Amino acid sequence: MLTRIDHIGIACFDLDRTVEFYRATYGFEVFHSEVNEEQGVREAMLKINETSDGGASYLQLLEPTREDSAVGKWLAKNGEGVHHIAFGTADVDSAAGDIRSKGVRVLYDEPRIGSMGSRITFLHPKDCHGVLTELVTSAPPAPTDH
Amino acid sequence: MLTRIDHIGIACFDLDRTVEFYRATYGFEVFHSEVNEEQGVREAMLKINETSDGGASYLQLLEPTREDSAVGKWLAKNGEGVHHIAFGTADVDSAAGDIRSKGVRVLYDEPRIGSMGSRITFLHPKDCHGVLTELVTSAPPAPTDH
Repeated sequence: MLTRIDHIGIACFDLDRTVEFYRATYGFEVFHSEVNEEQGVREAMLKINETSDGGASYLQLLEPTREDSAVGKWLAKNGEGVHHIAFGTADVDSAAGDIRSKGVRVLYDEPRIGSMGSRITFLHPKDCHGVLTELVTSAPPAPTDH
Repeated sequence: MLTRIDHIGIACFDLDRTVEFYRATYGFEVFHSEVNEEQGVREAMLKINETSDGGASYLQLLEPTREDSAVGKWLAKNGEGVHHIAFGTADVDSAAGDIRSKGVRVLYDEPRIGSMGSRITFLHPKDCHGVLTELVTSAPPAPTDH
């Protein structure tokens, strides 16, 4: 059902400085960056490795675009650090339904749009031993002319 | 230098209950378990996927064996949640030396023994934007008779 660690979401105060830390310290480069206004974050995805299910694992660096966003409130309380973890699945709707049926609270009624056009939902950390847990289905590859 | 997300380390109060949560909710099974007296933890490794560098990514569930261990003190302060993240490398000595030369504090003078006979070290979270970061070199495969 869940076939990879899709990403580790890390909250930071200053995205540019944090991107530079990961580049200078480890050589990790930005694979993709975007602003997600619904989630209230500016983010950078650093691709670390590919995975045996045909996907990849990333670090997702997150800077809030507003203080009242989920990440903004979390940062004000906790300071910088790991905000959530995410598992990849071929079918986020099915996985979320299955997990909801086991009594774990799923935070969205329907999956929303995450990084790189993925479809995502979150599980309540109090139902997951303190870990805010995201489920991700990657966007299909863009059509080509071939 | 660092070629995979090796694992996500998750601190919990009760290892057996947390293992059961991950099995019942997601179908993740225990790949390996051990007690590491030096680190003061009882742990279970759940293998999530294989990685493009020939390794794998795990969840590492950690229960302290004593209150004064690093994980025990962390749990008392923070409650259950993500304790650290770990990157895999072919050469932890070289990676640690390189990162130390950039001004990031490496917590051990020499790597110590981690899960499944790996060699590990940690980077100071205050030098890593709040993220306790581990470097791991897996143990070589056991020799066979072939």
